[in-house]
Amino acid sequence: MAERVQVEEKVLSENDKLAAQIRKDLGARKILALNLVSSPGSGKTSLLEKTLSLLKDEFRIGLIAGDVQTENDAIRLERAGGKIVRPVVTGGACHLDARMVGDALQKIDLNSIDILFIENVGNLVCPSGFDLGEDMKVVLISTTEGDDKPLKYPAMFRKSSALMINKIDLLGLSDFDIDKAEKNARQINGSLHIMRLSCRTGENINLWCDWLRNQIFSKK
Amino acid sequence: MAERVQVEEKVLSENDKLAAQIRKDLGARKILALNLVSSPGSGKTSLLEKTLSLLKDEFRIGLIAGDVQTENDAIRLERAGGKIVRPVVTGGACHLDARMVGDALQKIDLNSIDILFIENVGNLVCPSGFDLGEDMKVVLISTTEGDDKPLKYPAMFRKSSALMINKIDLLGLSDFDIDKAEKNARQINGSLHIMRLSCRTGENINLWCDWLRNQIFSKK
Repeated sequence: MAERVQVEEKVLSENDKLAAQIRKDLGARKILALNLVSSPGSGKTSLLEKTLSLLKDEFRIGLIAGDVQTENDAIRLERAGGKIVRPVVTGGACHLDARMVGDALQKIDLNSIDILFIENVGNLVCPSGFDLGEDMKVVLISTTEGDDKPLKYPAMFRKSSALMINKIDLLGLSDFDIDKAEKNARQINGSLHIMRLSCRTGENINLWCDWLRNQIFSKK
Repeated sequence: MAERVQVEEKVLSENDKLAAQIRKDLGARKILALNLVSSPGSGKTSLLEKTLSLLKDEFRIGLIAGDVQTENDAIRLERAGGKIVRPVVTGGACHLDARMVGDALQKIDLNSIDILFIENVGNLVCPSGFDLGEDMKVVLISTTEGDDKPLKYPAMFRKSSALMINKIDLLGLSDFDIDKAEKNARQINGSLHIMRLSCRTGENINLWCDWLRNQIFSKK
């Protein structure tokens, strides 16, 4: 196994070099880049749909939609008003890597966007290990999952800057304890900025929009 | 990258050898072994809790509970009446492999069980690539995820024998179309045995119990 570890370290280091270059290119143009990570079904695409509907006239939004198969998410985002949407089909791979993001960025005029959302593959484990050149990771969980997810998948919560707890419209219909979920998340990462919202009903979506505006302006 | 592929193939082949040995050992004792796979939060542990409460006096149930960190699931299963529960903490790895299962089985007297449930790490991508020596994979999705999951994560649905659509008590509260989900799943794997149920309310849990009884008896 030692050989395998060495090879993986080499691959990771190549990824880190590419990610650093992406970060430099985006930084030079003051583009805020967010890497959205979560389990399948927590609501990454729904969050981006809502974001497009609310902010597409305020900011120029670029989107990279990663998926194992299909371009379903990219199609949804275009329908929601996304003008610059690049699908990345990983063909089985369980996460995006910096090479995939770099290739997708070749097809985006970086002078035409203020913010770049990278929707990662739905997977709460593997994407935590791959820097994509983003400013920060945003992790989503939903109230229909377990409130112990931060403890069970700590790497993702440790590496994220913000946590969205989605589907608050379904609170009370399961055993999910939202205060406990927050407490568990803070136990893993005390500096997480946590927002509770519903992408379906739009409740508290203004918290997310305000946070985004702040992040965009602090890049300028 | 060629070197990496070769090394991974070697690792996989070692995994397959170990899995074949596990399958032989379990088969010799006519133990039904099921590998439960899903996203985090689809309800693998809830399904096993319900299964224990209903079938623990009828069958001798062994459980291996895989998790990235924590032994939370194993603790829940013991509370639900599980007498033979072995936690496997992968320490960051995104799936169980045959070596982990083989090690856990060393601590189980195989003459004392009729059925072995292996609860895999919550991940809809990576566990599809690792044979654990099971008779079949059972994949769970829930009605709070997207109904296009089978199309987006096809490998897992292709390699599974049964699909549980969980959380039917929450149908109608999201845009999830259960008929579409079934249709999407059958498009990927026409021979999937599909069951719709709610582990929370217990609705249709008898379908699962009956299916399990059939599988156990057909092994004898």
